[in-house]
Amino acid sequence: MQKFGGTSVADPERIRAVADHVARTRRSGDDVVVVVSAMGKSTDDLLRLAFDVAERPDGRELDMLLTAGERISMALVSMAVEDLGVPAMSFTGSQAGIVTDTAHNRAKIMEVRGDRIREALAAGKVAIVAGFQGVSTEREITTLGRGASDLTAVALAAALGAEVCEIYTDVEGVYSADPRIVPKARKLARVSFDEMLEMAATGGRVLALRSVEFARNHHVKVHVRSSFTWAPGTWVTEEDPSLTSMEQAILSGVTHDASEAKVTIEQVPDRPGVAATWFRALADAGVNVDMIVQNVSTAGRTDISFTVPRTDLARAESCMDKIVVETEATGYRTDPRIGRVSLIGAGMKTNPGIAAQMFEVLAAEGINIEMISTSTIRISCVVAEDDVEPAVRALHTAFGLDGAS
Amino acid sequence: MQKFGGTSVADPERIRAVADHVARTRRSGDDVVVVVSAMGKSTDDLLRLAFDVAERPDGRELDMLLTAGERISMALVSMAVEDLGVPAMSFTGSQAGIVTDTAHNRAKIMEVRGDRIREALAAGKVAIVAGFQGVSTEREITTLGRGASDLTAVALAAALGAEVCEIYTDVEGVYSADPRIVPKARKLARVSFDEMLEMAATGGRVLALRSVEFARNHHVKVHVRSSFTWAPGTWVTEEDPSLTSMEQAILSGVTHDASEAKVTIEQVPDRPGVAATWFRALADAGVNVDMIVQNVSTAGRTDISFTVPRTDLARAESCMDKIVVETEATGYRTDPRIGRVSLIGAGMKTNPGIAAQMFEVLAAEGINIEMISTSTIRISCVVAEDDVEPAVRALHTAFGLDGAS
Repeated sequence: MQKFGGTSVADPERIRAVADHVARTRRSGDDVVVVVSAMGKSTDDLLRLAFDVAERPDGRELDMLLTAGERISMALVSMAVEDLGVPAMSFTGSQAGIVTDTAHNRAKIMEVRGDRIREALAAGKVAIVAGFQGVSTEREITTLGRGASDLTAVALAAALGAEVCEIYTDVEGVYSADPRIVPKARKLARVSFDEMLEMAATGGRVLALRSVEFARNHHVKVHVRSSFTWAPGTWVTEEDPSLTSMEQAILSGVTHDASEAKVTIEQVPDRPGVAATWFRALADAGVNVDMIVQNVSTAGRTDISFTVPRTDLARAESCMDKIVVETEATGYRTDPRIGRVSLIGAGMKTNPGIAAQMFEVLAAEGINIEMISTSTIRISCVVAEDDVEPAVRALHTAFGLDGAS
Repeated sequence: MQKFGGTSVADPERIRAVADHVARTRRSGDDVVVVVSAMGKSTDDLLRLAFDVAERPDGRELDMLLTAGERISMALVSMAVEDLGVPAMSFTGSQAGIVTDTAHNRAKIMEVRGDRIREALAAGKVAIVAGFQGVSTEREITTLGRGASDLTAVALAAALGAEVCEIYTDVEGVYSADPRIVPKARKLARVSFDEMLEMAATGGRVLALRSVEFARNHHVKVHVRSSFTWAPGTWVTEEDPSLTSMEQAILSGVTHDASEAKVTIEQVPDRPGVAATWFRALADAGVNVDMIVQNVSTAGRTDISFTVPRTDLARAESCMDKIVVETEATGYRTDPRIGRVSLIGAGMKTNPGIAAQMFEVLAAEGINIEMISTSTIRISCVVAEDDVEPAVRALHTAFGLDGAS
């Protein structure tokens, strides 16, 4: 299984390079299934057209429109592979048997049939599959949400029992931090699914969260690598017990995300049901709440802070007045200029020294921590937006992640 | 039934104008089925991409690729109509039940099912259908050949029993000659199917030949009109007996075509089977022979001239040496710089004076006629390319076709 993202098929030259790699893999004797994204920024272009012709484009029609993008790239890749003398055949999500629920624009995969792909492979053909799309149980064309071509690849790899799911992209693999911010960031040879999940959830842009979840749940070996250098990249696999048994924190990277905003509800009476009230109101408004921190209450009142994608902030604000009244809070404030810095690594929870060291490093840089949240393999701090990059660099160095460069 | 060509849906503004017209038609109480072409030149752009990635793009993949064009325009038109508060739903050729044979890139329609369209209409929805495409009897996506969106519209109109098939385009209707060459050309209020057929076959670019044939054979009333002015255009209908019974030639227009080349096989022995020999050789080479003229033989030998699309000339030349040997001709010559001028009108055959007058008009202009062919309602003359425009203008005036302007 080989999956190529938008930048990997952005123009005819890139498509021919991809076809060449696919043909070579096939000639080496392996069955090959290829999943492709739409070319370059073409999905964005189609979306823009949709909003040019309609204020609120219909969900079904939006899916019909957007699926044209992968249809174009899969046909081009397929004819380019055929042109090299290797039989190939393209499949839409529907033809590939990606069956989804009926939620247009964000459908969930219900089943992967893959019969026609198995037939093509048995006939010695390379199967080229459109990512990001499927067909609903009601026979309508659906899409799986932005970035879901990775999910298509992982789901097909699971259904077909592929040896490996190679995700080709424009970077060489998963790095210990964003190399644009930390020049000494190291390419990781391997990360565990759990670490990759935390990275994807906290700003690591290499793999989409849902595809990592799917890969973990279905034991699909993922290899993230570059379609520009074709060098070996990063393996995402089950945790290696020989490493974790050492009971020592193994830090794998620092991630950051500067696309969120913070909302604080002030002086909420601390009583049962309050959280449910405001959380429901935000959910009904379609606001995606991420981190939530509730301070210890003083005199029966508490501040509740949460982060939302910055694009959801306007919607969140539109229902805050109602929330303040209903929860009997004294008011609310918002801060769009925040960012989150996260330290990811196995064995972190049992090494409280890591968190302490993280806070010390940030303090030494004069960086104020606004919110903290942790998981078994992650510590995240919300800081001012301007502090994000210095924080990433300081943490990367302090925790010994800098490469030799 | 309303069909909108590429220029009618070339950009968001045009699409919104089309949606507005469709919504208005629906609100006036009629069931509306809309057939759309790909936006502007997007089919050409996709074709160029195909030849950028592959020397000989596979036919199946080419169809998969090209059908993305109509998929985009149908989804955009549909969401634009919905956005105006009129329920709409888009259908690919496959979803619309356009069943074709298995010849990729030039499939023929075998059957039009249209069940899902009928359901949508019954539910009060406008059906927006992708032109130019279908699904083969082997479940593969096919295309019907360039310009075949008109055919989709006419075939659907026949299958659904539509009252009228309106073909919206960037001109106001069918003209007595190309208005770019003859400024005084008149818009025809109506033409018969036979005249329209002859016009389409001899360079009239308003309607594709196959769609006119289909409309004639299935008695579909066609109304060619403009999506820019929305003014009434030209009706293409059965011949009106009240007009033809007068036994007088009714000239409807002058067409021209400057896209052909002439090939002459010299001094062919005039014996049975000769025509079959060279015609078969050309057909096997994929050359589309159009007009054929064989001179009266002198001393058992004759010159045979035929025209081919200029794009086929190289292929024709590649098999001419073989043809010359096999037919025992003395040689061949080609002329790519020719054009054809045709006079179209009912009752022409029974009025030999028309042909005579046509030749006189051309002679008076000093234009040499290289080949002549006629049908019951058409006389075509092949002339030098540079003579085409003066010939069209002279004939248009001489036969009283000039409008008042």
